[in-house]
Amino acid sequence: MISLPVKANLGDMPAEQQLAMRYIKAYTDHDYSALMRFYSRDSVFFDKTAGVQYKSNRHIIEFLKRAHEGVLEYRLNIEHMFNNGSLVVIIGSYRLRGPGDQYGKPGKIIDIAVPGVTTLKFDMNTQRIIEHMDLMDYQTMSDQLESQ
Amino acid sequence: MISLPVKANLGDMPAEQQLAMRYIKAYTDHDYSALMRFYSRDSVFFDKTAGVQYKSNRHIIEFLKRAHEGVLEYRLNIEHMFNNGSLVVIIGSYRLRGPGDQYGKPGKIIDIAVPGVTTLKFDMNTQRIIEHMDLMDYQTMSDQLESQ
Repeated sequence: MISLPVKANLGDMPAEQQLAMRYIKAYTDHDYSALMRFYSRDSVFFDKTAGVQYKSNRHIIEFLKRAHEGVLEYRLNIEHMFNNGSLVVIIGSYRLRGPGDQYGKPGKIIDIAVPGVTTLKFDMNTQRIIEHMDLMDYQTMSDQLESQ
Repeated sequence: MISLPVKANLGDMPAEQQLAMRYIKAYTDHDYSALMRFYSRDSVFFDKTAGVQYKSNRHIIEFLKRAHEGVLEYRLNIEHMFNNGSLVVIIGSYRLRGPGDQYGKPGKIIDIAVPGVTTLKFDMNTQRIIEHMDLMDYQTMSDQLESQ
């Protein structure tokens, strides 16, 4: 799911931002068949803050399935979005509600909102992702987890 | 110059964020002798939105001198800052007041506030910049320039 600032209107957006919204919807809905169409064998998923990188549709989707296993709700609240050509920058926070097993809270349901920045570099001809890069505030995430 | 959110207190910050603040002060004050100590021959300045990259202290400072020639005021308003180890992420806006010659407004003084994200990767042993990466909302900048 996605929530947009009030002023945003999908039809007024540049084509690149509209494509980004469709991708983020597939991403937060865990719609893996839609995601398969967004990634190619050369697509890169790069968590710059964690220093972790996955390359190719297959490896990215394997990672996402593992990371998002059992997640009940996943939503991106967008605070600001802009693009320069085919590079789209999204500033906001990712809300995640789901099992705490991967977050050091086994048996508990956690509910966190992690501030972050996502950049999406598209190949506008093929409408595919060249690079998805995340910058995540893991300190805030860990502070939130502490009290759950 | 830097302005911080109210809650921020320099002494409470992680060492990496304190180093980032000292760097941003040198950067926005155009203090090139301080900047020379932050960059090494391997430092990279990467404007990801513009797709432009400079490598080495000498080339970065040459670029900054050119880009900021005659600037009267340069300030980073920080909205949110976080780090994971030696990678510091700053979300905010850059306010720039100065001659419009490089912005298609010759003979005029322009005053703009450009939303953006800056990431700083440090070598904490040498206290030097490995990579300064910018993501800038050039569309907002151009909208602001249009009315000046």
